Amino acid sequence: MQVYMDNNATTMTDPKVVDVMMAFFSERYGNPNSLHKFGTSTHLPLSQAIDQVYTAINATDADDIVFTSCATESNNWVLQAVWIDKILNGDKNHIVTTEVEHPSILSTCKFLEDNGVKVTYLPVNDQGIVEAHTVKSFITDKTALVSIMWASNETGMIFPIKEIGDICKDKGVLFHSDGVQAVGKIPVNMQDLHVDFMSMSAHKFHGPKGIGALYIKDSQKLTPLMHGGEQMGGRRSGTLNVPGIVGMGKAIELATQNIEATMASIRSKRDRLEDALLETLKDVFVVGDRDNRTPNTILISIRGVEGEGMLWDLNNALIGASTGSACASEDLEANTVMLAIGADNELAHTGIRLSLSRFTTDEEVDYVIDEFKAAVFRLRAISSSYATVGPTPGGEAQMCDLIHHH
Amino acid sequence: MQVYMDNNATTMTDPKVVDVMMAFFSERYGNPNSLHKFGTSTHLPLSQAIDQVYTAINATDADDIVFTSCATESNNWVLQAVWIDKILNGDKNHIVTTEVEHPSILSTCKFLEDNGVKVTYLPVNDQGIVEAHTVKSFITDKTALVSIMWASNETGMIFPIKEIGDICKDKGVLFHSDGVQAVGKIPVNMQDLHVDFMSMSAHKFHGPKGIGALYIKDSQKLTPLMHGGEQMGGRRSGTLNVPGIVGMGKAIELATQNIEATMASIRSKRDRLEDALLETLKDVFVVGDRDNRTPNTILISIRGVEGEGMLWDLNNALIGASTGSACASEDLEANTVMLAIGADNELAHTGIRLSLSRFTTDEEVDYVIDEFKAAVFRLRAISSSYATVGPTPGGEAQMCDLIHHH
Repeated sequence: MQVYMDNNATTMTDPKVVDVMMAFFSERYGNPNSLHKFGTSTHLPLSQAIDQVYTAINATDADDIVFTSCATESNNWVLQAVWIDKILNGDKNHIVTTEVEHPSILSTCKFLEDNGVKVTYLPVNDQGIVEAHTVKSFITDKTALVSIMWASNETGMIFPIKEIGDICKDKGVLFHSDGVQAVGKIPVNMQDLHVDFMSMSAHKFHGPKGIGALYIKDSQKLTPLMHGGEQMGGRRSGTLNVPGIVGMGKAIELATQNIEATMASIRSKRDRLEDALLETLKDVFVVGDRDNRTPNTILISIRGVEGEGMLWDLNNALIGASTGSACASEDLEANTVMLAIGADNELAHTGIRLSLSRFTTDEEVDYVIDEFKAAVFRLRAISSSYATVGPTPGGEAQMCDLIHHH
Repeated sequence: MQVYMDNNATTMTDPKVVDVMMAFFSERYGNPNSLHKFGTSTHLPLSQAIDQVYTAINATDADDIVFTSCATESNNWVLQAVWIDKILNGDKNHIVTTEVEHPSILSTCKFLEDNGVKVTYLPVNDQGIVEAHTVKSFITDKTALVSIMWASNETGMIFPIKEIGDICKDKGVLFHSDGVQAVGKIPVNMQDLHVDFMSMSAHKFHGPKGIGALYIKDSQKLTPLMHGGEQMGGRRSGTLNVPGIVGMGKAIELATQNIEATMASIRSKRDRLEDALLETLKDVFVVGDRDNRTPNTILISIRGVEGEGMLWDLNNALIGASTGSACASEDLEANTVMLAIGADNELAHTGIRLSLSRFTTDEEVDYVIDEFKAAVFRLRAISSSYATVGPTPGGEAQMCDLIHHH
C-alpha cells in the first residue's frame, strides 16, 4: 500500500479534470486571441471555466478573476504591484504581513525591504494565528497593504479574515489574502467579507500544476506583473493556458460543489487519525484547535523524534508526509511555524504534517496509524535525547510489527 | 478539410508530447520539493527535460535554463530585472529595443518608460529587420540592455543576432533576445554567439501552453520576477509545473533533433504556396527575402483586400490564418510591422500571415492555394478601392469555385 498524505503540498489531478483538459492539447489547440475557429472555439470552455471559479468563491460580476501561472505569481503580483503603484509612485512605504506566510510572500517582502519598503512581520499566538486587534495596532498612515494568509499551509489554522478585512476597510488599507489553503478546503464566500485580493492555486485542489488565479474585488486597478499582449483584459498577458484554465475551472467546481459533505467526510478521517495518534503515543502535540483548522490537516510534534527521521521511516512505508511547507522542505530547517508559536528548538524539529484529501480512504488511515506509531517507537528507541525518558511501554512489540511490515 | 496555418500564434501539442505528460497528472503527481518518493520520483524526468532543452539550444553546463510560465514571463523577467538591478539600483537608465518586438517587450518597455527609463525603439529596414550598425549607433554609456527578437513572429525575418551580440559584448551591454520564433524553426546554437538571455515558449514548437523558459548565459545574476520557495535554484519560485516541463523537454527534442531535414520539408511546402500565390495573383507582395526567413512563414499583402475580410473568407473555408501577431489580432489595427517597413496605411491593413508546421501536408497546401485565390478574387470583386483596377482576369471562374466549396 502507498498512501499520499501530503495534500497541502500538492494534490493528485482528479482524473475527471484531466478528462476535460485533454481535448485542448492536440484538438482544440488554437490561440484564444486568434480570430479563426481554431481560436474562437476555445472561448466557450474558457468562459465556462471562469464562471466555475466565480461560482466557487461567490464573486460578483463587478469583481475580476485573473488566471496566473500559480499562487506564487498571484502573491508576487499583488505585493510588487502595490510597491509600484502605492510606494514607488505614491506616498506609502509600509506593508503588514505575518511571520508565518508562505515563502512567496516572505521572500517577496525581503525583496521589497531591499528596495526600501518597510515591512512588519506580525507574530502568531499559541494557536499559530494572528489576531485582528494585532493587525489593527500595526497599521499606520503609511501602510499600503496588509497581506495575511487565509489558512496556514503548515498547521491548517484558519485566520480571522473577516475581522481583519473589516479593520483594513475601516483604515482604508488594501487587504490581500493568500487563499491557497482555504479554497477547496473550507467555504470561501467573497461577498461575505472584505478582501481586495485573494490568491488561488489549482494544484492544491486536484487541479493541474502551472495554473492559479487572483481574485480582485471590484476589478480595481493593479499594475500588471506581466505586460504584453493584453490577454485577460490587459491584466495578465501571455498566451492563455487553455488546458490549465479549463482544468482549474473543473477542479474548483468539483472541490466546492459539495464542500460541506466532502469536508465532513475528510474531517472524520482526519479526527480518527489524530485521535489514534494522540491516544496511543505519549509526548505528542498537535498544533491548534481542531475546530479552527482546515479539516484535512494535522501538524503533530513528537518529543524525541526528528522530523526528517520520521519522514524517512514513513517514506520507507510508502507514506508521503511532510515536515511542513514543501516549498521549504529541502532545507531541513526547524519548522518556522512551530518556532513562531513558541515551541522550543528541539520540538520545532519534530513537526510532521499529515494532510488528507477527498481521495483518502479509511484503509489508508488505518495503515498510516500503524506505520506512524511503529516509526515513533523505533525512532524513540534509538533516540539519545528521548533515552532519558525511555521508550514508551509497548514499544518493543510495535518494533516487531515494523519488521513485519518491511 | 480544415487547415491550420497559424503556427506562429500557437501550435498543436504533438500527441507524443501529450503521451509523456500524462503520467504526471494523476500518477506521478508529487511536488518535486517534497522529500518522499511521490516528490523525488519526479526528479529524473525533470532532469531529463532540462537536458533536452540544453541539448536543443547547445547551452553549456555553465549556463542556466530556468522554466517559466511562458515567453511573456521570460521577457518581462529580463526587462524588469534589468530595471531593478541596473537602473533602480544602478547607474544606467537606457534600454534599446526595436519597433517590431512582441507586445510582451513593447508593453513592458512602456511600463518602464512610465517609471523613468529611457527606451530607444529602433526602426527596421525594408526587410523588416534591424541592422547591427544601427544597434551600435544607439548604445550609450547609460545603456543597460539591448533586447532584440531573434526572428519576427509576423514576417519570419531573422535578425542578425550574432553581429548584434558581438557589438553588445564589445560595448559591455547586456543582450537579450526573444527567441520564441527561432527555437524549433532554425538551428539555435548558444555557443556560436553572444546572447546573455534568450526567451523560449513551448507552445510555439508543439509543446503545451503555460510553459516557457529563459536561457541565462554563464548563470549570471538576475533578480527574480517570482520570489518564493527557492525552486529552480531560487531563480523562479512556484511549484514546478511537472507535466509542462516534461512536455516542453520532449517537444524541444522533437522539434530540433532533425531540424535541417524537417525544415527543408516545411520550406519546400512554404515556397510552393508562396510561389503559387505570387504567380497567379497580381498586386501581391511578400515581406522579406525568403532566404533570411524562418522556413514556415509568409506575410503576404494583397492590394485591395482588407486583412480581416481575407481572414473571414479563409475562416469560412476552415483555414486558420492571421493578420499578424495573434497577441494583437483582436485589435483589427494596421499591421505594425508592415507600417514599420514603410508600407502605406492601406497596404498595412492587408497583411495575411500563413505559418506552416511539420504537420502541414501537401494536400493542405493545395487546398489553401485554391481557397486563398478564391477569397482574393471574391473580395477584390466587391472592393471599392480595388474597383479602379478591376478584378484580376479569371476572377469570375474562381468565384464559382468558391461557391462550390461552400
